[in-house]
Amino acid sequence: MQQTASLAAVAAEAGVSVATASKALNDRPRVGAGTRARVVAAAERLGYVPRHGASRFRLRGTVGIIASDLSGRFALPIMMGAEDAFGLGSISLLMCDARGDAIRERHHLRALVERNVDGIIVLGSLSSPRPSLSGMFEVPLVYAYAPSDLADDTSVDASHEHAGAMAADHLVQSGATKVAVVAGDPHVRATAERSRAARRRLAEAGVEIAGGAVYAGEYSEPWGRAAARAVTERDPDVDGFLCGNDQIARGVLDALKELGRDVPGRARVIGHDNWAAMVEPARPALTSVDMNLEEIGRVSADLLLRAIDGRPEPGVHHVEPRLVVRGSTMRTG
Amino acid sequence: MQQTASLAAVAAEAGVSVATASKALNDRPRVGAGTRARVVAAAERLGYVPRHGASRFRLRGTVGIIASDLSGRFALPIMMGAEDAFGLGSISLLMCDARGDAIRERHHLRALVERNVDGIIVLGSLSSPRPSLSGMFEVPLVYAYAPSDLADDTSVDASHEHAGAMAADHLVQSGATKVAVVAGDPHVRATAERSRAARRRLAEAGVEIAGGAVYAGEYSEPWGRAAARAVTERDPDVDGFLCGNDQIARGVLDALKELGRDVPGRARVIGHDNWAAMVEPARPALTSVDMNLEEIGRVSADLLLRAIDGRPEPGVHHVEPRLVVRGSTMRTG
Repeated sequence: MQQTASLAAVAAEAGVSVATASKALNDRPRVGAGTRARVVAAAERLGYVPRHGASRFRLRGTVGIIASDLSGRFALPIMMGAEDAFGLGSISLLMCDARGDAIRERHHLRALVERNVDGIIVLGSLSSPRPSLSGMFEVPLVYAYAPSDLADDTSVDASHEHAGAMAADHLVQSGATKVAVVAGDPHVRATAERSRAARRRLAEAGVEIAGGAVYAGEYSEPWGRAAARAVTERDPDVDGFLCGNDQIARGVLDALKELGRDVPGRARVIGHDNWAAMVEPARPALTSVDMNLEEIGRVSADLLLRAIDGRPEPGVHHVEPRLVVRGSTMRTG
Repeated sequence: MQQTASLAAVAAEAGVSVATASKALNDRPRVGAGTRARVVAAAERLGYVPRHGASRFRLRGTVGIIASDLSGRFALPIMMGAEDAFGLGSISLLMCDARGDAIRERHHLRALVERNVDGIIVLGSLSSPRPSLSGMFEVPLVYAYAPSDLADDTSVDASHEHAGAMAADHLVQSGATKVAVVAGDPHVRATAERSRAARRRLAEAGVEIAGGAVYAGEYSEPWGRAAARAVTERDPDVDGFLCGNDQIARGVLDALKELGRDVPGRARVIGHDNWAAMVEPARPALTSVDMNLEEIGRVSADLLLRAIDGRPEPGVHHVEPRLVVRGSTMRTG
């Protein structure tokens, strides 16, 4: 016999009263469209089955998603998280891709507004703040991953500082005493925030920065290989590598292998993003900081529903990362 | 001064007469919605500027895309190709993800039909034929990547046989005399078709199959490493590796490096998919067969527009792969 969720659980999950949840699921009036959608989504997440079986709750709405670069690795998990939060079939997603082009983005924005969408999620590919689109149209907007440069807008952002600090703390805890910070593109905000936080935490723990400074280059395996060789030559006793993403970390692992340095025995290596295709097949498997992109999508969807209901929550909302420990920092199994 | 495309070029690109192209762009009657969309898309691709400047052609339509697994690597390039072919803003895409669940897929299908979409692209993630959804609703459907099991449906498929043959031919041309076929999951149709075609071509060229049979396992780096070690132990003079995808090929390259075998001097290695994040950072960079997924998306969109116009072209339409040669099969630079 399968347990089904109670109406109270659905209400709690949606953050509304039981009375409101009941009204929402039974399609009664005086429930805002956004609230209704959140309750329906919560009911579906929890597998709630209405007592009288017959009433299949149904809500209609359309939300646009403008991605700036779908081919990147960041857009999809965020979109999937948003789709989850909107609930199966209650809100439809109109999807378009600006492909990094501001004119194309405006065009899509106008087309979505002309189609009377209830709201729009604007998805960044780079993490740096982006020009606001608000004021052009009346439709509620939420900016995901790349926050708007206007404080009055509603944005959902990854916590890059926390990610950098988390990676540094973990290296220290796993025994590193001299850590190389091998960062990606220095013009990307995530790089700067992660590196700054990591350096501060390492200094606080009395751990030396190998090479004396952050090595910043690009988010690639070849850069990871080159940086690892350069750092090791300059500071042969380096025993930790804090890498800007998983591709850099793969390159570092390869170079250490060629240099005959055991990981994690002689050096610990940590990446960022927790990209399955990179971290799992690495030898050893790669410890990484997961930026929780699906959660960014869920939170964005939830904030958009609130804004559609006339209860916007402006400002930048941060989603916390989480550490996934594997063999590159600790002996396992 | 910027050259602009002629109306004749637009008509040729769209495969219609100049008169039809003109009517379509000027929003005159007697042009089907699908034709109009193709002409608008062609005009946008070619950067066509109407003579009188004022008339910005505009067409409205909505097409649904049901992906079976957006998190896979195959859905996105196909979606982006379709978006290209539909033309910027003339057709909007309602996107949903069935996440490999047939019930979820039916649900999305019904929701899209209730929203009066003009047509639907059903996107497969695995390459094996899938149960038809036709007959449930009246809306035109095109199946992309995973063809429908009904011959009367319209499907667009990659040419896996041609891909396997192309890889085999290239290994032979680059001097291989004893080739290991390291395939992925044997239950996936693409695996079987590629391997069969490759074996046939190698036999025709008088090239021996190392180990005497296809090694089939999974689409992963660890499998590539394990298979390369096993084959090399059994057949030390193996000098070519035909790999089911780029991850397998990365694993093979790693194992050969550890075994001290020079690539491409002593062994040539080729992958499938041409996945940038895998092939470019490999050492040497990896030769691969690109399945032209964006083209699959473009052809699917075009066939859907024809079906919307009442001119369906049932059957399985194949998109040909292309070879991308890099350092793992030939000395370059």
